[in-house]
Amino acid sequence: MANAKTTNILDTGVKLVRNVGSFNFGNGAVVDLAIHVDKRREIAREAGADDRAVYLVDEFFESSEGFVSLLGSRHEDHVAYVGTADEPTTDSIDKLTAKLIAKGFSNPATIVGVGGGITLDTAKAVANLLTNGGNAADYQGWDLVKVPGVHKIGVPTISGTGSEATRTCVMTNKKTGLKLGMNSDHTVFNHLVLDPNLTATVPRDQYFYTGMDAYIHCVEALAGSYRNAIGDAYSQETLNLCRKVFLADDMMSTEAREQLMVASYLGGSAIAASYVGVVHPFSAGLSVVLGIHHCVANCIALKALGEFYPEANKEFLKMAERQKVLIPAGVCSNLSDEQYEALFKGTIVHEKPLTNALGSDFREILTIDKVVALFKQM
Amino acid sequence: MANAKTTNILDTGVKLVRNVGSFNFGNGAVVDLAIHVDKRREIAREAGADDRAVYLVDEFFESSEGFVSLLGSRHEDHVAYVGTADEPTTDSIDKLTAKLIAKGFSNPATIVGVGGGITLDTAKAVANLLTNGGNAADYQGWDLVKVPGVHKIGVPTISGTGSEATRTCVMTNKKTGLKLGMNSDHTVFNHLVLDPNLTATVPRDQYFYTGMDAYIHCVEALAGSYRNAIGDAYSQETLNLCRKVFLADDMMSTEAREQLMVASYLGGSAIAASYVGVVHPFSAGLSVVLGIHHCVANCIALKALGEFYPEANKEFLKMAERQKVLIPAGVCSNLSDEQYEALFKGTIVHEKPLTNALGSDFREILTIDKVVALFKQM
Repeated sequence: MANAKTTNILDTGVKLVRNVGSFNFGNGAVVDLAIHVDKRREIAREAGADDRAVYLVDEFFESSEGFVSLLGSRHEDHVAYVGTADEPTTDSIDKLTAKLIAKGFSNPATIVGVGGGITLDTAKAVANLLTNGGNAADYQGWDLVKVPGVHKIGVPTISGTGSEATRTCVMTNKKTGLKLGMNSDHTVFNHLVLDPNLTATVPRDQYFYTGMDAYIHCVEALAGSYRNAIGDAYSQETLNLCRKVFLADDMMSTEAREQLMVASYLGGSAIAASYVGVVHPFSAGLSVVLGIHHCVANCIALKALGEFYPEANKEFLKMAERQKVLIPAGVCSNLSDEQYEALFKGTIVHEKPLTNALGSDFREILTIDKVVALFKQM
Repeated sequence: MANAKTTNILDTGVKLVRNVGSFNFGNGAVVDLAIHVDKRREIAREAGADDRAVYLVDEFFESSEGFVSLLGSRHEDHVAYVGTADEPTTDSIDKLTAKLIAKGFSNPATIVGVGGGITLDTAKAVANLLTNGGNAADYQGWDLVKVPGVHKIGVPTISGTGSEATRTCVMTNKKTGLKLGMNSDHTVFNHLVLDPNLTATVPRDQYFYTGMDAYIHCVEALAGSYRNAIGDAYSQETLNLCRKVFLADDMMSTEAREQLMVASYLGGSAIAASYVGVVHPFSAGLSVVLGIHHCVANCIALKALGEFYPEANKEFLKMAERQKVLIPAGVCSNLSDEQYEALFKGTIVHEKPLTNALGSDFREILTIDKVVALFKQM
């Protein structure tokens, strides 16, 4: 019966896969973005609708002179820089959506998200909210988004999260402690511009941590019990590419940055057809309770979770050593009992990935004592 | 300057990749087809349009009692069985389109193509013609299709051609001898149902020849000069899957059929982001002049083209031996001079793939004597 239960809880919405509509790929591809935005303006004008665009851009680019006009923005468009000190919360999404409506951008021709996972997820969530109404928290879960969001274009500037390809946009609900996205076909980007040139200026540590998100996704997916041939193929190729990148002398060579951008996209496609495992729930606990960002939290978690993923743990440590990147240590060493309990709760709530990894009896393995002991090693 | 010319001729339409909209994957997924067709009927009804569907089905299934109703067809729909004795011609596409119009199906809610490359390509071509008007030959080439075709759903029943994922539908123009598809974003399927169960009844030889189409595509793509990281990744994983399938004891086990269906889809995605090489032009010559079907023609060609692809040639022969499949021999041994000249012309016309493989000076390598000598070995 354990098998039957496993199948049941993991059956939701994975058999049908929605692809990103289309994408441009290549160094310099970002110059094509303006063409795509202009096409959307034309379609909007023909329909008698608002032909202005909204640009949500990682704050990193705020000081880059001329960057936004390179992206095809016009003075009548709205450009908002997205802070990356904190990951998206249901509150931050609600506030940004309200701000756009207040400024008259309730139905723009397109929303262009330019940045890492935080910015891309923000663009996806806001696009859904503008057309569906209500609050972000209403849509945390599976297939709760009722109608298509505003047309949206994703332009990743760092590789690894796979947000550009997935049907989710992760947000933390500070009230409930729940870190969960709007898992929906409507969350998928209509178009992507994949330009590896954009990742040349990423700090090395961040480049590594974020790239590892793709690696860890796929390690978890391939070790899970919910598998299918297409998810496996995407995961396998993502791992092959990550090995090429992170076992190379320079993970940031032109070739490596191209490969990692592909790995991120394929890793996201893998996730769309599979589930994560033990690392992501622990990582989510670190994010929700301690505010540690997703990608570095993944790395901290995988380092301590060698008993669940022995080979990947070893390979990952070798990659970090090769690229001379330090994984933060001691982040959970001196916490209060309440914090440890919160970490446990923030981990164990992720039933789907834990069932995928450990079966429906995962609570018998991940007791509170066991989970706290693992966190204390992080 | 050779490089500049190579870049130029190969630059057309590859940087932008259109994905299949969505897909169902898994054994038994075909039962979901009716749901998708019914969704299209509903959308058509809401728009006051024709809510009937057209089913184009491989003639193989004509005798399978109840198969078409399993696919969700209703008595008011139009079901046409597609013959597979000959590959699609511009004439056959024109005739089928005229027939559909005559029967009142000029704008159906969706066209469902169920079969192999012939049937899927037929569905794609007819869908384009119904909305664009004119004749099939008008659209042979790159980006000549002006408006989106009728909505279309692909259901492959054999794996390898990648037609389910590509932006082309190959047709032979008997008047000009040109074998070339409607290469267009509008040619891409809106939805796929990928059900590996459907391939269980394919004859072993045909299963091998067709599967090899994916393998050969990707061998050619990875050996070419026009490369990019995303095409490479798709090609690499396609080859990995083909090796698992064709070097296994039984290429038609449940697991192998699942893997080959994924390989076909990813191989098609690879082609969308790259070019083929020397094998496909020779194979096209065999098809145009001698009427040999595409997939077996590929195998015949690769067997004789070891000097261009030495490792793949060896691996391919090993796969054929392992699966106990014979590659036809002597198909060009006793032809007339006119036929040899036609074979040469039918090969050398494929400038893009030959430039990709051999550079813009390919005619200096592939002289008529050389090409005829190679055909005589087939």
